Amino acid sequence: MKHNFNAGPSILPKEVFEEASQGILNFRDTGLSILEIGHRTPLFQSVMDEAIMLTKELMHLDRDHSVLFLHGGATTQFFQIPMNLLNENETAAYLDCGVWGSKAIKEAKLFGEVKVVASSKDRNYTYIPKGYAIPADAKYFHYTTNNTIEGTEMFDIPETNIPLVADMSSDILSHSMDFNRFAMIYAGAQKNIGAAGVNMVIVRQDILGKVNRKLPGMMDYRQHIEAGSMLNTPPVFAIYVCLLTLRWLKKMGGVEGIEKINRAKADLLYKTLDEKHGFELPVAREDRSRMNVVFLIPDHSLEKKFLDACQQAGMVGVKGHRSVGGFRVSLYNALPFESVKALTALINEL
Amino acid sequence: MKHNFNAGPSILPKEVFEEASQGILNFRDTGLSILEIGHRTPLFQSVMDEAIMLTKELMHLDRDHSVLFLHGGATTQFFQIPMNLLNENETAAYLDCGVWGSKAIKEAKLFGEVKVVASSKDRNYTYIPKGYAIPADAKYFHYTTNNTIEGTEMFDIPETNIPLVADMSSDILSHSMDFNRFAMIYAGAQKNIGAAGVNMVIVRQDILGKVNRKLPGMMDYRQHIEAGSMLNTPPVFAIYVCLLTLRWLKKMGGVEGIEKINRAKADLLYKTLDEKHGFELPVAREDRSRMNVVFLIPDHSLEKKFLDACQQAGMVGVKGHRSVGGFRVSLYNALPFESVKALTALINEL
Repeated sequence: MKHNFNAGPSILPKEVFEEASQGILNFRDTGLSILEIGHRTPLFQSVMDEAIMLTKELMHLDRDHSVLFLHGGATTQFFQIPMNLLNENETAAYLDCGVWGSKAIKEAKLFGEVKVVASSKDRNYTYIPKGYAIPADAKYFHYTTNNTIEGTEMFDIPETNIPLVADMSSDILSHSMDFNRFAMIYAGAQKNIGAAGVNMVIVRQDILGKVNRKLPGMMDYRQHIEAGSMLNTPPVFAIYVCLLTLRWLKKMGGVEGIEKINRAKADLLYKTLDEKHGFELPVAREDRSRMNVVFLIPDHSLEKKFLDACQQAGMVGVKGHRSVGGFRVSLYNALPFESVKALTALINEL
Repeated sequence: MKHNFNAGPSILPKEVFEEASQGILNFRDTGLSILEIGHRTPLFQSVMDEAIMLTKELMHLDRDHSVLFLHGGATTQFFQIPMNLLNENETAAYLDCGVWGSKAIKEAKLFGEVKVVASSKDRNYTYIPKGYAIPADAKYFHYTTNNTIEGTEMFDIPETNIPLVADMSSDILSHSMDFNRFAMIYAGAQKNIGAAGVNMVIVRQDILGKVNRKLPGMMDYRQHIEAGSMLNTPPVFAIYVCLLTLRWLKKMGGVEGIEKINRAKADLLYKTLDEKHGFELPVAREDRSRMNVVFLIPDHSLEKKFLDACQQAGMVGVKGHRSVGGFRVSLYNALPFESVKALTALINEL
């Protein structure tokens, strides 16, 4: 038995693996693989329809929001968003609270003016900036809800009247929030939604069609909405894995149900780390992520002892991101509580 | 037993389905699913490395060409190519010989001047234009080697000294040709390469870095080359399916080996259709595609008889593209000769 703490691509529910594996051999008793069916068939259309419907249901989205499954990963959204929303002479407001947010800022600058309202770069992104003002005349405000690499998470939605745009790649569907307050939400699927190779984009239609540049078809959200995410051949299998994962989430009690488990997992792990001598947590206590727990073990012999114990116990994905070092343990929706119990037991025994 | 004549996503070898299905449960005896392993691990790096190596080997590519596996499908390449290669005041030459080529032309016009050197639109793209001149001062010449929808294919490589760019989505790896003559080749994977959700892009590095516009990171081929197709999380599973399919192709004798089978399949089907009363082939004989065979059955009762017989025999994917009507039968690499034999027997018995 493995305990998979990978930061993404990451663990998915066992039953999702089993059903996905079966679908590759014989999809819904058609005698065909999910990999060889046409995307413009009723069969695949039903996969797409149900995935969209479940997303809307689980996030309690209103009618103004469209759900898209697009190619390109969240990194493509870094430039596609300003390309669709920002004219050259206009300003967008961004929060700089991690590696991914700063990449989004860099790309936005290619399309218009960027006002960075606050940054936590001064302390290596170990906290979430607070008390900043969002300019009322900015075109939109962009932030990252959870910083996968640094292990910080922002649970409160900023107060502003301008359109809110959020990169939720690493904490989408992990806790309840008023998703309707966002004009745009995007997330790479490979953490809480499904498998790598597809990107969920949720967009409120009234913010579109206001830039004066000409957009390539594949970059134009309106064309994707009109084509029901099938402007070209979609990543069929990746979307199917999303559907299976969304079904599983519904069975777990939806976002509200999984939030309880996610809180219990994070509480147990942080408590264990706080109490354990030799383990350090660099992140500000109030900004600790429930998805990605970052810690350091300054003593090299203890560090080695920990790594050896992890390996013996079949634990993978505990090493920190190459840009930060130390350790990072990811507790996404599909990670069982048992894996956290096993990890905390291991830490206590060190 | 099904006979899958889908135009894409389409049939893949049975052993690819079996190995892909197994990899979702337990990838290479790691106890982990291919869907839950990190992309920056030696495990996945070995998948990527082998897929690139096999592509180079099967296509006999020289050192000047880089092989990339990118998000977005071939449709993204329609605009990414001019974005990378064409300045606003420069001209690119395009051949207009099908629905996909005309879409590529439309996107290129957003970035610079487009000179359409020839078009077969006058006769619904049922032939490949010949005898046109390619301007020697154009930045590049773009064409589609095989027109999936219309059923035409261009086997000869145009003579020109300017960089050749080809959309080979539906006939890549199906017959031998001098791939090194191209400055760029691209192809959605979902026909001859693997599963939907990834795009193969082959580029000769000397044509890059010459435009003066600023490129978003995800649109810049140079950044993808430098990052080894891992600028962001790649479509892990789709790339794995490519690897399995490329391995199978090598076992079949490579491109040269599969070409013999592909010729035999197409020859048998076209001969049967030519000889069968009531079946019409709209495509010019010399431009017939070996991958997508388009035909019409003007008599409605014969048409119905044919469709009923196909359904009874477990044949799927024989209907023509919604923009053309009639019938289209796709004979991609993985389609067994037995399926063509079954289809021709069925036609002869009508």
